[in-house]
Formats: sequence, structure tokens, C-alpha cells
Amino acid sequence: MKRLFVKDLTRDAEVNDYFIVVRKGTYLSKNNTKYMTLLLKDRTGSVEARVWEKADELGALFDRNDLVYVESKARMYQETLQLNVTSIRKVDQELAPDELKEFYPESSAASGELQKSFYDLVSGMKNPHLRALFDQLGKRKDLLEKFFYFPASVGIHHAYLRGLLEHSVNLAVMAKGIAPLTGTDEDLLVTGSLVHDIGKVEELKVKGGFGYSDKGRLLGHITIGIMMCDGLIAAIDDFPVYLGDVIKHIILSHHGEAEWGSPKKPMCLEALVIHYLDNLDAKVVGVREHMQENMDDETWTQYHKLFESRYYKIPER
Amino acid sequence: MKRLFVKDLTRDAEVNDYFIVVRKGTYLSKNNTKYMTLLLKDRTGSVEARVWEKADELGALFDRNDLVYVESKARMYQETLQLNVTSIRKVDQELAPDELKEFYPESSAASGELQKSFYDLVSGMKNPHLRALFDQLGKRKDLLEKFFYFPASVGIHHAYLRGLLEHSVNLAVMAKGIAPLTGTDEDLLVTGSLVHDIGKVEELKVKGGFGYSDKGRLLGHITIGIMMCDGLIAAIDDFPVYLGDVIKHIILSHHGEAEWGSPKKPMCLEALVIHYLDNLDAKVVGVREHMQENMDDETWTQYHKLFESRYYKIPER
Amino acid sequence: MKRLFVKDLTRDAEVNDYFIVVRKGTYLSKNNTKYMTLLLKDRTGSVEARVWEKADELGALFDRNDLVYVESKARMYQETLQLNVTSIRKVDQELAPDELKEFYPESSAASGELQKSFYDLVSGMKNPHLRALFDQLGKRKDLLEKFFYFPASVGIHHAYLRGLLEHSVNLAVMAKGIAPLTGTDEDLLVTGSLVHDIGKVEELKVKGGFGYSDKGRLLGHITIGIMMCDGLIAAIDDFPVYLGDVIKHIILSHHGEAEWGSPKKPMCLEALVIHYLDNLDAKVVGVREHMQENMDDETWTQYHKLFESRYYKIPER
Amino acid sequence: MKRLFVKDLTRDAEVNDYFIVVRKGTYLSKNNTKYMTLLLKDRTGSVEARVWEKADELGALFDRNDLVYVESKARMYQETLQLNVTSIRKVDQELAPDELKEFYPESSAASGELQKSFYDLVSGMKNPHLRALFDQLGKRKDLLEKFFYFPASVGIHHAYLRGLLEHSVNLAVMAKGIAPLTGTDEDLLVTGSLVHDIGKVEELKVKGGFGYSDKGRLLGHITIGIMMCDGLIAAIDDFPVYLGDVIKHIILSHHGEAEWGSPKKPMCLEALVIHYLDNLDAKVVGVREHMQENMDDETWTQYHKLFESRYYKIPER
Amino acid sequence: MKRLFVKDLTRDAEVNDYFIVVRKGTYLSKNNTKYMTLLLKDRTGSVEARVWEKADELGALFDRNDLVYVESKARMYQETLQLNVTSIRKVDQELAPDELKEFYPESSAASGELQKSFYDLVSGMKNPHLRALFDQLGKRKDLLEKFFYFPASVGIHHAYLRGLLEHSVNLAVMAKGIAPLTGTDEDLLVTGSLVHDIGKVEELKVKGGFGYSDKGRLLGHITIGIMMCDGLIAAIDDFPVYLGDVIKHIILSHHGEAEWGSPKKPMCLEALVIHYLDNLDAKVVGVREHMQENMDDETWTQYHKLFESRYYKIPER
Amino acid sequence: MKRLFVKDLTRDAEVNDYFIVVRKGTYLSKNNTKYMTLLLKDRTGSVEARVWEKADELGALFDRNDLVYVESKARMYQETLQLNVTSIRKVDQELAPDELKEFYPESSAASGELQKSFYDLVSGMKNPHLRALFDQLGKRKDLLEKFFYFPASVGIHHAYLRGLLEHSVNLAVMAKGIAPLTGTDEDLLVTGSLVHDIGKVEELKVKGGFGYSDKGRLLGHITIGIMMCDGLIAAIDDFPVYLGDVIKHIILSHHGEAEWGSPKKPMCLEALVIHYLDNLDAKVVGVREHMQENMDDETWTQYHKLFESRYYKIPER
Repeated sequence: MKRLFVKDLTRDAEVNDYFIVVRKGTYLSKNNTKYMTLLLKDRTGSVEARVWEKADELGALFDRNDLVYVESKARMYQETLQLNVTSIRKVDQELAPDELKEFYPESSAASGELQKSFYDLVSGMKNPHLRALFDQLGKRKDLLEKFFYFPASVGIHHAYLRGLLEHSVNLAVMAKGIAPLTGTDEDLLVTGSLVHDIGKVEELKVKGGFGYSDKGRLLGHITIGIMMCDGLIAAIDDFPVYLGDVIKHIILSHHGEAEWGSPKKPMCLEALVIHYLDNLDAKVVGVREHMQENMDDETWTQYHKLFESRYYKIPER
Repeated sequence: MKRLFVKDLTRDAEVNDYFIVVRKGTYLSKNNTKYMTLLLKDRTGSVEARVWEKADELGALFDRNDLVYVESKARMYQETLQLNVTSIRKVDQELAPDELKEFYPESSAASGELQKSFYDLVSGMKNPHLRALFDQLGKRKDLLEKFFYFPASVGIHHAYLRGLLEHSVNLAVMAKGIAPLTGTDEDLLVTGSLVHDIGKVEELKVKGGFGYSDKGRLLGHITIGIMMCDGLIAAIDDFPVYLGDVIKHIILSHHGEAEWGSPKKPMCLEALVIHYLDNLDAKVVGVREHMQENMDDETWTQYHKLFESRYYKIPER
Repeated sequence: MKRLFVKDLTRDAEVNDYFIVVRKGTYLSKNNTKYMTLLLKDRTGSVEARVWEKADELGALFDRNDLVYVESKARMYQETLQLNVTSIRKVDQELAPDELKEFYPESSAASGELQKSFYDLVSGMKNPHLRALFDQLGKRKDLLEKFFYFPASVGIHHAYLRGLLEHSVNLAVMAKGIAPLTGTDEDLLVTGSLVHDIGKVEELKVKGGFGYSDKGRLLGHITIGIMMCDGLIAAIDDFPVYLGDVIKHIILSHHGEAEWGSPKKPMCLEALVIHYLDNLDAKVVGVREHMQENMDDETWTQYHKLFESRYYKIPER
Repeated sequence: MKRLFVKDLTRDAEVNDYFIVVRKGTYLSKNNTKYMTLLLKDRTGSVEARVWEKADELGALFDRNDLVYVESKARMYQETLQLNVTSIRKVDQELAPDELKEFYPESSAASGELQKSFYDLVSGMKNPHLRALFDQLGKRKDLLEKFFYFPASVGIHHAYLRGLLEHSVNLAVMAKGIAPLTGTDEDLLVTGSLVHDIGKVEELKVKGGFGYSDKGRLLGHITIGIMMCDGLIAAIDDFPVYLGDVIKHIILSHHGEAEWGSPKKPMCLEALVIHYLDNLDAKVVGVREHMQENMDDETWTQYHKLFESRYYKIPER
Repeated sequence: MKRLFVKDLTRDAEVNDYFIVVRKGTYLSKNNTKYMTLLLKDRTGSVEARVWEKADELGALFDRNDLVYVESKARMYQETLQLNVTSIRKVDQELAPDELKEFYPESSAASGELQKSFYDLVSGMKNPHLRALFDQLGKRKDLLEKFFYFPASVGIHHAYLRGLLEHSVNLAVMAKGIAPLTGTDEDLLVTGSLVHDIGKVEELKVKGGFGYSDKGRLLGHITIGIMMCDGLIAAIDDFPVYLGDVIKHIILSHHGEAEWGSPKKPMCLEALVIHYLDNLDAKVVGVREHMQENMDDETWTQYHKLFESRYYKIPER
Repeated sequence: MKRLFVKDLTRDAEVNDYFIVVRKGTYLSKNNTKYMTLLLKDRTGSVEARVWEKADELGALFDRNDLVYVESKARMYQETLQLNVTSIRKVDQELAPDELKEFYPESSAASGELQKSFYDLVSGMKNPHLRALFDQLGKRKDLLEKFFYFPASVGIHHAYLRGLLEHSVNLAVMAKGIAPLTGTDEDLLVTGSLVHDIGKVEELKVKGGFGYSDKGRLLGHITIGIMMCDGLIAAIDDFPVYLGDVIKHIILSHHGEAEWGSPKKPMCLEALVIHYLDNLDAKVVGVREHMQENMDDETWTQYHKLFESRYYKIPER
């Protein structure tokens, strides 16, 4: 779909290609004519753009967060590249997962590999009720497809395509290894790991930059995930009541404390294990992403506002 | 069903009647024989009981929290009444709401009156979707019946039969009055008031003293109530998505802050109004119940552990 | 007094009118001459201004927060209007409440209407002591006049002329409606509502933008309000001691918690009701003002720093 | 007044003397007659007492917290002394400060010595306004007398007669010494030290054990102290407004943080000094009192619930 | 050493054996003679004891927390066994680790097995500096021996002999497994796991019940552990400075947050992993120990005061 | 070393002098050539600088935080002075304490005077062990020299050369005066005052602006200071164990609460005194420094982010 990526733009290039509109504003110039300023992005970065002619007319054709097709020319302005746009229109097609990756960063783990790990984990479980839960999920193609390509967060950790699957699978593998060392139920750990964040497929939206849906802001992924599991379980015959409650409890409590979004603390051993490992994986990967982007010097990152700390990159020996 | 209540017990009375078992323990007496100590209750209070003969045999016939039929005689021991039990057996029938009130305190508002207020509030709404939600609830006789006789809490506020309905209706009436003064949607306020605590019908259980169910401890009434509404709404044609999300958000946020059990703060005006009025009604009624039972002297209550304060009863003028 | 308002300024207009000085700075231009930059405001908005000539001389004639009379001409600079000032001088008269409204936004409720509601509430009380308190307040014309035109806060809620009166009266009306539903003393609720924020008439100052007085920053409106009531009550014969303490307690505790500025929690039922309704009214109106000024898109406001949340405007049906 | 103190009671002694009633209860004995159990105290300790005869009649003659005259005989019961009371009646006289010390512990510093220190501190001030404040206080004999014999707290620190004066004077002496090292105003520090806790003379009451008055519970000593100073200052000609505000601010902020009862933090240097030194003196003396009464072994105290720590008594070398 | 354990005591048995003195008190009997009450324990439980004769004389021969040799006879008193002691004396020998286990519970993992795991983990490291650290520790026989038999806490988790080693080794094994999944340094994780709690060998003391040393209460195991490592590292040639700092940082930060005792948060990836896994292991084992001792019914434990929750034992399928 | 200070720079001056590099960046100009922007400082302030020629070549010769020798000419740009740099190179010498003061602000107390106070305090102690501790410190010339010229913090309080010594000595003098008023051990207070912040000589670094060392960020001055004292004490014969623990405890607890960095609260009287006085001195001096630099108008400072308050400068009378 895309041919020319932001990172490859050069001065004076003709740029006729697809982008996502991150920002859109209309202003009055000194000689009283309207112009538009835009920020356009693909998976390799973002670029400023200006529409100097027919700003009114063109502006009516698209909106912030839309996928657009742009005809333009690159020029230098105050030492940075800028696109001088002559034509722009909304592209009304839904992007297939394959196309999304032209506009967003993606996990370094291959899609097929992660899905294989997911299916291996599921088929490795002995508990027939828990396997039935994933059979049921398999019937919800809409959910599963999103689960397979969504990021795990907007910007804290695993903030790239397939990040949600990567995080869920990694957590399940860790949990499986730790089950015998803690005397906990392996199948419950695997199930809890794979569904704990499933509500994110409706909490987040992937359109013009990772963001939150209305439902996501009003209810959050924990509540949404519990409603999803409630629906899936209701469709399974003879699913043990206590088991359904435990799975929902694992989702509900995986943030560990009320102040972090879990109105119930983990109250069974498996919920405790999921909580600590989820925290571990999210924090370690989040810090690593922070280290890749926000170093202050060779050893120290900048202050991480959410985690409330700087981080130290141990020098290579 | 009951004939003789705890508050009417007198020395040497024959007491052959129904009670709920609050506590049950078996001990070895000095001459090496087993005896049982029990605490038995009905709506008027509780009384100690002893089984001196055949403790093993009788003890196998019932458990803590059971409704039992007891044959006994009242005697004085260390200045308090005690039942000397000769026969005791579990009564295996489910108590009808009418019978429950022989064992539990109940709201001072009549049942019919409260239900009438409830139906008046519902039929007074203009929004057809919201009325449809209550039509749907009307089909769930199991839920509705419990909603009509459950307490609103185990011991903090409205801790008596029909307390849940009384609290919900009172909240709705307050909210309705305040709607024009705050420019908020009256129908949403009424709906939110009536369903905000509906999850309590599965969080609590009414058996041998108000208590928590397993599901209640693992998930809490907020999460349970949202799942209930999710199920009810799914069965209604063309229920607006945003409206369903707002109702669930009102339930989710009605405790106001994460540390008080709401992972999302109230984010729309109606959710704010419900939150503050719910707090007001629960706190005022909770303090009033505390004033009825736990005064330190004429003007001051004892310290209320949960509310972290003493309270002052303004002297009558 | 004013003829031309900020919102009506047009390019090249002669602007000879009154403004309040919000910001004042003196700089050195490239050719080593001094110039002044000013920000001037009236109730409709604010406008940048420059004094290019005689900056030293004119600058000595007024200060920040002063009311000034300006002679100037409007011109465009970098796409915004700017006043080119040739003459400016301080206007040393105290502004009458009627004149203030030319410089500040005001409540949408008419002044006479709000005052009528206030007097109706007072005369509707049965408790002679409480009516006496307001008689006493009526003798303090200085206080009462400010109480009638002050804002309720610098920027959080009811941040406009008469906001304090509007908030107090609205709270009293709500409280009156709720009194029978909570079994609380109506007269105490009305009194508490009307005096709970009275200390704001000395905590705040209305001059060149709503701000804080020295006394206000050092003591806060709660402490100031209590001292005011202490003084008023001392002048009334036979005012019951307990009643004075309760009124001061309602003022002291109306923020509800120590961390929100109330060193004592509400300890009587009436103090609880005032606390929750005050919170409700302040929050709902504060969110509504935020919705009017700071929407991020059609449905969501920007993040509100003090309230620590975004807010959702329910779509019109 | 008293002749025989609790610590000197011996078996079989005739005890006809004055005590304060700390606890009072009426019970039914096994043979259906009423008896009273009492706890009686003087400054040296407390003793259990029983009224076996005419419990109804005698019980009507006095109440908890009363000073009573008792006729009784000491006997042993379960290895502790108990008074067998035959006559008891309320003593309706107000106790003079001199008599109070027979019932309460008192400061080790002599009364005259502490008062001399107080007057020396006051007369040593150079600021005429601040001296005038204490002249005014001198006219309020009722306040000053209480200020001279009240404890500084019910049980946390300086919980003995004259503790309030001892604490205030000690704080002033410390502050005076520290003034030159911090470049702060010595007279303000002395004044702030002497009045910071003055509201305690109305917050506390000394009757049958140190306790809280209604006003004290509803308003607290900080608010009460500010109203007192407000009244005193109002009676002084030309007292500078800013100075009155600063003194009230020192009282208001001396607990340092909202969560410890100060709605405003210390905002001037003198308020900071008073806050830290007050904390230091209260904590050190409070820990020392805890060390005198609650050691777990030779080196460690028991856990102090309010201070949330154990304390270590450094071994003597 | 021991022959008869508390759990095997029977009525009328002659009990001449070793115990630890948990509690010791002297009282006056009704006939004015002194007697002593003791609580004696071994690893299987504790038993009340009384010394009726020569209480003064025998009481001088031992103290609380001492190991004593007792001659006594078991009798029933109020339905529980009690030892009637005729002779008691302090045993002044230091208990060898082998003997300790007669008085304390111990890990279910065999001592040899745990030590072998420890040495395997150490010898499996590739980093020569880190191996040198453990060589150095090997020279401190006093430390190492205690490290091999101490409990991991007084009562929260792993509160039995060898609990410290079991917890440290388990943590290291978990961390080793997780290293490749998080891209962290395996040797640092193993080292951090094995030394993170090493300060406990001086914070705790094992004498008459697990308790705290003076040093432990004043400094805590984190600070003590850092000083130990500082001493060990100082004795190693060319130990990289940054590596020493990182190891001490891992110890310092392993509680994760200031409020939990770590003045620095984990700032490198390895410190994060140790923190979360330590939490996981301590919490899971702590909850499991709570489940073994404090169930409320078959599914729910009692409320755990430190962890602030009840726990749910998933029903066996 | 320096001849021309930032505060004395004038337009068109030749500036060939020493500075510290605070900021360093390289950019591309419109005509595609590289240039560098620098911020250079000495003790009197900082100045912008530009390298227009040979930016690559010169940029390789130094780094941020380096001391450099610059050849340049001052010019005006947008109304501020800017250095036009033609030559710049790193100066590789370690700065002697005497030279440091050309680049940093310093205490107003003379160096000799502060050191004399320090030695007087030490020699005034009666406890031989504590004097021995300072003898030992005297042998660590490296530590002592830094202790004599380091700031007490990067920017909160005493943020100037010799600030650490000034703060420590001032604290000791205050503590000595307060010892008799609190009945605490004077020598322990003096010792605790002088060593409580000694870890700052390794936590901080003085190079191109006060900053933190790696060790400082990972461990903090409390932990570092304890390790230092541990080392010093280990070298003293017969230093009492309890005394060493108490000194380390005073260091450990001097921030008072876990959330402020002290994992143990002050547990002995001397630790309490040090904690409160340290807080007092740090806060008073910190506020005074804030008052010198950040006034909003004549009476109020700007908001202090760390202290979370504005401050009020009492008007001169």
C-alpha cells in the first residue's frame, strides 16, 4: 500500500502516499487567507504538512485520525522537512491487520510464531473446561483477530502491533515455569495469563495512533474483559460456577491494589502469581522501551513520569 | 412460623422454636464428656445455648448458619439466660421472604409502599430504552424478588430486610429532586439510582445472619451489577451502545475513587450526582443506625471504626 | 463606563477605554530603547498591548492589577490583534458592584432574583436564633455587599460575579429539599448552606482578576468564616452555646476531610448533608464550566488537573 | 482534702475519702439483687469498688466523672484490692487548682517557677503590640488560670497538671535560643510558642479524668485558639493587621500538614520554627512518658500506637 | 536431647525434659504465697506450667527466652494440660543447629538438599567477580552457618528453620528461569537472589522463639545486608565499583517502594526482577502458611492483618 | 584563574576565559552547515554561546559538564548577550577547592570559621569513643576535604560551596543548646549532627553544576553515610557495639519517615532531636533561598514545588 515512508523522505521529493492524520488545524494567514497545518504519520515517524490552497474545500474531506491519501512535495522549512500538500482525501477502507503494520511499529516476534505459542499453550492444558473457554473464544473471530494484532498499551509497555499477544504469551510461559515452584495450578495460570488483558481489544482503538475508545475510558479493560469472559462462559455447558468466578477474579485483581485499578486484591494463589508476573513483565518491558527512547546520557534514562524513577543501564563489561 | 422470640424469653420457659445458628463449638467437659455451645438468633436478638447430652449425635444434624428447630428449656447462668437444648435439627426448607422477617430486622417502610414507589419511579421515566431495561429486569423474577427484600449491607447502613430497596428508592427520589437544580438527565439519575447497588443481590447472602457469598467476595457488587446489566441490555433490541456504557459507568464509578472500590471516577454529570447522593444517603443512615446502637453518653456516639469518627447528637431544644 | 469590549475589537479601531492590567513588563528593544508589553482585560476577554513611546514615564503611572484608562489603536501582529498604546493612566476610583461586571463575567442568574431567594430562605426559617444571626449579618453592610457580588472561587467553580451567592443559595435550596428525606433540621441546613463559604469575602479579592488576599492565603476561608460567625454570634443575646458551636462546626467540616482542608470531619447529620451537597454542587458546576471551555473533541473534555479526570459529555439523542 | 491515696491502700483498711468516678455500672447478681461496680481514682492510681447494698438508692446520687466522698473498707478479691462501699455521695464543689493535684499527676516543675518563666518571657519582648496581647490576656483571669494548670493533652504528651504551661514555656525557651541561628524574629517566636496551644483550655476539660469538651470535639484547639486571639486582638488599639494574621497563622499551621490538623502549612519562617520545635518537644516528652510507663524489657518500649513505633532506651554506660 | 514433645504429653505423665521459656510471671496466691506461671515450648507446640513451691528461689535460676531443663508432672486444669513443675534450671549451652530443630519447626526441604542447590547455583555462575563474592562469604563461617539455618521471618513467611535458605534458593531458581524471558543478566539475578535477605542473620535472633535483635530493630536487614556486602567486597581485589554498587542497590531496593522499606526504587532491570519475584515468593508462601493455620471455613481464611485481605482456597475438583 | 565573570560581560567584549559547560547541542543551519549551541556558567551566572565555525572539530574536544577554556566575543542577539566562540578546549585539571569557588556560589560563612567551629565541637565532647570516631575521620583526608567544601544539596537548601559543613555545624550548635532542655546526650547529638549527611560527599558530585554520582543515585546519602561510619568504627578499638548501632540509626532515621527516605523512624530520643532540627534547618534555609530568588511580589514567593507551598515574607516594620 505505502511506497514512501517518513524516514526516507528527502528534500524536493514528490510524495504521493498514504498517512494517518495525527493533528489538524486551520489558521488565518497574514493576508487573510485560510491554510491548514497537519501532522501525518506512518510506522517510521511523523512529518509536518501544510495545505496552502483550497484549505476549506480540502479540509471538509477528512478528519483527525483518518487514513488519507496525500499528494504533495517535500520542502525544507526552518531546518525540518515539511510536506506542501496539494490534494488530500480520506481513504474509507478498513485496514487489514497486514496493512496496519505500514503505519504502526510492530513486535519483533513474528506473528505466526506468537500465534503458534498461543495455540500450543491452549492445547497443552489438561482442564477441559478451560480448553472449552478458548474454543468459545475461537468462535469470536472479531475478538481473536484484534487480540492477535493489538498493542498492549497506548504508550507504557508493549506499545506496538502484536504487543498484547506478545505480553500475554510471555506471561503464560513465565507462569508455566513458576507453577511447580509455587505449587499452583498450571492451567489456571495459563488461562489467566492469556485472558487477563483481553478487554484491551475494546478499551483501545487502533486508528490514527493508538488511543482509547469511549467504552474504554468509561469502563476500562478490566471490566470489559470480565464482561467478555462472562459472555463466553455463559455459552459453555456445565462450566463450574466457582471456576468462572475465579477466572473473573484473576482479571479483576491483576492490578493488585485498588489504587492501581483493581477493586479486589488477589485472593487466591493463582491470582497472586499472575499479578506479580504481569507487573514484572510490564515493568521490565516498559523500562526497556524507555531505555531505547529516553536516555539522558549513556547510563541514565530521563525521569519516567508514570514509574516515578530514572533507570540505570548497567555498563557493558 | 416462630412463636417465641429471643427478647421474650423468660427463666424456666419451655422453648420449642426456630432459630438461626450463629456460632457452634464442641468442647470436652472436666469429666471427659463432649458438650456443644451454640449462639442462636432471631430478629429480636441472640441467646447462648448448650447441648449437654448426645452432643456428637445432635451435632452431626446441622451446621453453622443453618435454620434449626430446637427443643429446650431456658435457665439462668452467670446472670444471663441460656437455653438447655435437648433436641435440635436442621430445617431444610428455603425461607420465603415473609418468613425471613421473623429472623432479621426489617425496614420501617412497608414492603408494598416501597415497591409502589419503585414502580412509580420506573413508569415515570420518559426514555423508552431505560423503561425497557426495567421491563427486562421484571422478567428476572429471581433477581427482582431478592432486590425487594435484601439488606443494603451487612452492617454499615440499611442493614435490615428491604434496606436495599429503601436505599435505592430514597436515592432515586433525592436525585429526581436535584435534577433540575443541576441540569442533569432525570431518567438517567432514576435508572442509575435504582440499579447502582443491584449486584448486592448476589454479593450478599441472607442465611444465618447477613453475609457474603463466595462470588461476592471474589468480585464485589459493582462488578456483579455490571454483568447483570450487560445481560439485561443484551436482550433489548436497539439499546443505544453509549447509553449502556453510561449506565455501567454509573455503577462502576458510584464509589467515587479507586481506593473506595471504583476503578473509574465519575466522568459524566449524572455519575457525579449519583456518587455524592449515594454517599450522603449511606453515610447519614449509617450514622443514624450507629446513633441508635452505640451512644457513649447522651450526646456522643462511640468511635465508628469504618467512618473514623465519633458523632454528635444535637441536643433537643 | 466601558464602551468598547475586547470581543468587539477590530483592526485599526481607535480604542479609548477602561481595562484591567493583568500583566506588565518592560523590555529593551534592539535599538536600545525601552518598551512595555501589557495584557489588558475586561469581562469579554483579554488583549495584548504595547507601549512603544515614553515607556518609562507612562510605566510609572500604574501597576499590575490596576484599573486603567487607555488611549490606543488596534493593529494586527502575527495574526492576533494588539493595542498600540499612546496614553495610559490609573483610574483611582473604587469600582461599584455595578461597574465590576463590565470587567468580569457574571452569573447567569439575575442579581435581584438571587438576593430575593436569599431573603426568602432566611425569612422562611422558624428558629429565632438562626434568624437573629442573619439580622446581625444584615448590619454588616460591608460583608453582605461583598457576599452578594463575589465569585465562589478563583477558577474552580462558580468563578464569576455573584457565583458565591448563586452557589450558597443553590446549596440551600437543595438542602431544604433533602431535609425531610434525611430527617435533618431544615433551618440548620439552610443556615449552614448560606454561611459555609462566607469567609471567601475576605479570602478572595476582586481586583484585576480574581485573586487571594494575604489574609486569605494565611488563614483560608474556613477559619475566616468561623471568626466572622464568632463575632456575629457574640453580638446576639442568649444565642445557645451548642448552636454556635454546631454552626462553626458545619463551616469547619464542610470540606469533609483533613486532607481537603477540614481539620474536623462532619460529626453531626446536618454537617454531613452540607458536606456532600456542597461537594456535589461545586463539582457539577466546576465540570460544567470545564466542559464549556476545555473540550478535547465533541465528547471528551481535556484532563482536569485538580479533579484528576477527563469528563464525558453524553451525546444528545 | 484527701488523706489516704490509692497507692497506700492496704488490706482491711477503712477508706473514707475523696475519689473521682472513672467507671460506673449496675448489674444483677445471681440472687436477683442489684449491685454497682465502680472504678475510683486519685493522682496515685485507681481502684475497683463494689456497692452491694442499696445500689439503686446510692447510684442515683452521683454520676461518672463526678468527685465523690466514699465510705468503704478494703478487701482482697482475686488477688487485687477492692473497696467494699457502704456510702457514697457527690461532692458538688468546684475543685480549686490546688485541690486538683490530689487527683491528678502534675508537672515536676513547680507552679511558681513556671509562671515566673512565663512572665519573664513576656516582659522580655521588645515588640509593644505583642506585649499588649499578653496584657489583654492578663485581663482574662478565667483563661489564664486554666492556662496555668491544664495538661497539654489527654494522654499523648505532658498529660499532667501544668503540662500545658510547661510545654509552652519550654517551647518558648528553645525558640528564643534558636532565633539567632535561623535569623527569625525572637518576639514572634516567643508569642507563637506561648499561644500556639492556648485553645486547649476550652478543648479539654479536667473532671474525673482529662477529657474533651463538646466544643473541643466539634472545633479543636486550633480553631478555638484562633477565635480567642481574634477576640484579644480586637480589644487592642492599632494592632497591625498583618501581625494579627501572622499570629493566627502560626496557631493554624503549627501541626504542619493538613492530615495532622493544620489546613494551612507554615508559610513564614517563624511558623516553620514553631512547628518543628513543637513537634520536637511534644514527641520527645511523649516518648519519655511512654518509656516511664510502657517498657517491654530494659531497652525497648512497647509499640506506641499513635507514634507507630517502639522506642529504644540507650543503655547507661 | 529431647525425649518427650509437647504434642505427645498425656495426663499424669512425668515430664523431665528441655523446653524454651516463652513467658514467665510471678504472682501472689490467695494465701499470700508466691507462684510462677510459665509458657514452655518445643517445635511441636507450647504448654502452660506452674511452679507452686520455691517460686522465688527457682525463678532466680532462669529468664524468659532461656533454654531450661524441667522436672514436672502433667495434670489437667480447666480442660487443658498443665505442667506442675518441681525443678527448673537454665541450660547454658549454645544450641547446635541440629539441636535447634527440636525446638522450632523446620523447612520441609532437607538441609543437605538446600545447601547443594545453593552451591550449585554459585558454581554455575560465569562472572568471576560474583563467584569471588561467594568465596569471600564462604570464609565467614559464622554468617554462612546462620544463613543455612535461620528462618526468613519472624512470622510472615518461611517462618521456620532453614526458611531463609529455602526462600533465597527458590528465588534464585525462579530468577534463573526468567532471565532469558526478560533479557536480564542471569548471574546478577542469582547473586541478588542469594544475598538480598542476608542481613536477616543479624536482624533476627533465634532464641526462645524467633525475634529481633537490637541491631535488627535499629537498622533492619536491608541496611545490615548492605554493610555485610560492603565488607565482603572490600576484601576482593579489583571488584568493579559499578558492580558493587549494583549489588547493594538490589538489596536496598528489593522491597520496591519507600513505604515498604526501600528508600530507593529498583532502578535497573535486574533489581526489578528480584523485587517482583521476591514479593511473589514471600506472598505466595505467606498465604499458604496462613491457609494452613487460619481457615475460617473450608474455602476462606481469616482476615490477614498484614496483607489486608482474606484468601480463597480453590475447591478441589 | 578566571578574570572575567558572566555578570560583568558587556557587548563586544573579548572573552577569553574559563567556564563550565552546562548544555551542549549541535544543529544544522539553513545553509546545511553544522553549528553548536552552548550554555556556559561560572559562579555569577550563565551565558548562551554559539560555535559557527568548525563545530564538528571543536565539538569533539569537550563534553557537557567539562571545564573549558573559551576564546570568544560577546554580541547582542534578541536583546540578550551571547558569546561567539572561535576556540574552545577542555581543561583537564582537577579543580582545587579554592578554584571551585570561581564557578560556584559559596556559603557566606568563611571557610576557616566553619572549620574552627567543627573542630571546637569535636574537641568539646567528653565521650572518648565519639572523639575517636572523628580522629578516624581525620585520617580520611579525601572525605574530610570534600566534607569541608561540598554543598548540602543540589538545589533545595544550602546549595552552595561549604553548605554541607555550614548545615552540619549549625545543626550541632542548635542541638547542643537544646540538649539540656530535652534531657538528651549532648555528645551523641553533636556527633549525629556532624555525620548525619556525611554520605553526601559521595552521593553528590561537583562538576559542571552540582549533580548526582551513579553511586549516589543507586544508594543515596543515607546508605553511603552508614557504610562510611561502619568502616570508620571498624578501625577503632573497643568501640561499643550499641553505640555504633545508635550512630548508624541516627543517620538511617534522620529523614523521619519511610516515605521521606528513612526506612526506620527515629527510635531513640537523640534520633528524634536530630530529625526535627535537621528538618527545621533545611526547611528554614531552603525557604530563605527560595525567598531570595523566587518572589512573586514583595510579600509572596512563587509556589515551591518540592515544599508544596508559597511563602510569606513578613513586611518590615
